[in-house]
Amino acid sequence: MVTASALGDRLDAYRDLTADAVVRYVPVREPRRHLYDPLRAYTMRGGKGLRPALCLAACEAFGGEVEDALPSAAAVELLHTAFLIHDDIEDGSETRRGRSTMHVAYGVPLALNAGDALATLCFRPLLDNVNLLGSRMSRLVTAEFHRAMESTVEGQAIELGWRAEDVFDLTPVDYLDMVLRKTCAYSTILPLRAGALLGSWGQADLEPLTQFGYALGAAFQIQDDVLDLVSEDGRYGKDVLGDVREGKRTLILLHLVHAASAADREFVVALLRSGSRPDGAVRRVAEMMRDYGSIDFATAYAATIARSAAESFDEAFAGCPPSSAVEFLREIIPFMIHRSA
Amino acid sequence: MVTASALGDRLDAYRDLTADAVVRYVPVREPRRHLYDPLRAYTMRGGKGLRPALCLAACEAFGGEVEDALPSAAAVELLHTAFLIHDDIEDGSETRRGRSTMHVAYGVPLALNAGDALATLCFRPLLDNVNLLGSRMSRLVTAEFHRAMESTVEGQAIELGWRAEDVFDLTPVDYLDMVLRKTCAYSTILPLRAGALLGSWGQADLEPLTQFGYALGAAFQIQDDVLDLVSEDGRYGKDVLGDVREGKRTLILLHLVHAASAADREFVVALLRSGSRPDGAVRRVAEMMRDYGSIDFATAYAATIARSAAESFDEAFAGCPPSSAVEFLREIIPFMIHRSA
Repeated sequence: MVTASALGDRLDAYRDLTADAVVRYVPVREPRRHLYDPLRAYTMRGGKGLRPALCLAACEAFGGEVEDALPSAAAVELLHTAFLIHDDIEDGSETRRGRSTMHVAYGVPLALNAGDALATLCFRPLLDNVNLLGSRMSRLVTAEFHRAMESTVEGQAIELGWRAEDVFDLTPVDYLDMVLRKTCAYSTILPLRAGALLGSWGQADLEPLTQFGYALGAAFQIQDDVLDLVSEDGRYGKDVLGDVREGKRTLILLHLVHAASAADREFVVALLRSGSRPDGAVRRVAEMMRDYGSIDFATAYAATIARSAAESFDEAFAGCPPSSAVEFLREIIPFMIHRSA
Repeated sequence: MVTASALGDRLDAYRDLTADAVVRYVPVREPRRHLYDPLRAYTMRGGKGLRPALCLAACEAFGGEVEDALPSAAAVELLHTAFLIHDDIEDGSETRRGRSTMHVAYGVPLALNAGDALATLCFRPLLDNVNLLGSRMSRLVTAEFHRAMESTVEGQAIELGWRAEDVFDLTPVDYLDMVLRKTCAYSTILPLRAGALLGSWGQADLEPLTQFGYALGAAFQIQDDVLDLVSEDGRYGKDVLGDVREGKRTLILLHLVHAASAADREFVVALLRSGSRPDGAVRRVAEMMRDYGSIDFATAYAATIARSAAESFDEAFAGCPPSSAVEFLREIIPFMIHRSA
């Protein structure tokens, strides 16, 4: 068993490897001031690096070298950053990774364009895969990226549609379907499948990895939604209570809407329907989420999904010999639901 | 020589072929209401179809079948539409192809996401190229798309940067460099090169096509800027005097800033620096553009560039046997600067 600090060390090592690769794919040329300089600064803020770590570890677990997956891991991180920039515009978020979001710093037009640039640049490492791995492997990996990108915009459309049309009558199944498309497809399923493809030279059975990635990603997202509510100011790097303020349909909100008294439910729904969400009202909804047990519900739900992830894990990596990469991926499961940032 | 109506007929035929292909690449599945239905309706508005026509004609000119280039032509049109949706958000434009822009109809979040979806979907036909043309040709064509996309976001960053920082001291060379990256790279150079690659099975010398595409695209863009000022309401399909209202650095504006009296220049610059541009002031700037000869200057400039395009044309297609496709491409040059919509 990997200790918490061994997991953290390995995550850091993967993150540093990826960070070096990512920065090489942001061009050093004009236009600097309104495109590449802000992009480089933004990508260097760095996140936890979970997504590229999944790709690198899956490659190693299936017998590959970390170098084989490095361009793909960099592409995952670049794509993730592109999504973050556009997401923050769509959600009106102000803080990301502890600093101003791109559109707050540079305005919507330049930020939107910078996100487009990153979504384009993420294909550079995938083009490099042709020389590194040949055209067949390169094409298989690139196809995974395209599939994940299509899924992500579908998930985003579903979530934005709920908000645009004031939809509240949603079940955990609706929520999980949205999260599968919006979060899991590119955050966990894509890096795991791409890594396994690369490590096994196209021989791995990818379907169990999809199942594992789905459970892992859902557990990650639910914990993310919990952290939005319970994190101390600044720790989390995003807007405090941002999900409530943005009217996001989290599992926690869905529980509250079902569990609350008629009067409280009316208060919550009225606030979400309203364009303006003052701090006091947002805090009151957050308190209700605690008092009605909605946060506890989500935490318990994440734990159940994490158990399901552990079962999928055993199937997905059944054919892999023991290795520190396999252990890392196993320990990522509890990390997803116990992390505090 | 092709008559004007023969050119129009051929353009229509290419456009209809492309339209059928484009619509096949917009999925018929959920989420419909907030993604694929609006996208299908938007792509079916259709434009002139110049970009895909260049791709199909170049393929035929170099000896290929139109079917070989159809997926790539569809990809060009899908990419163009993706750029339009994001451009209109960045520019705050309200009218496109005679109707509301996507973000006016659906709000910025859903429109931004729909643009992302199209930029992703445009790779589907390029993936289909593998089966149609083999992996080498497919990879060459896809690389052209990536190059053009990188160039486009760079051009867009330059133009948005000028507006964000109130830059007026620009020369025609600055303007042409921006147009090369923002407009020509994906609108003319990409479809011509991709078509020639496909038609010649990778044998065509692409450099003269880049030169031809540059001149053709620059003539197109300058005429576009002129039409923004002289078109009758509704004819043009975009916001009337939209460029002035959005503060775009067109060749016409650059001429005016240099040619105007101190007082008039001050008026123009103050208006462009201001966030609010009332109709009366916008119309006054448009009148100055006429009175100071700025529109005539741009028209003459476009004619000069069209002559340069004609020279590049002779070199680019020197090795091609006579065909109606070659004649179509030759006649596109005068069409670019004489079109009224």
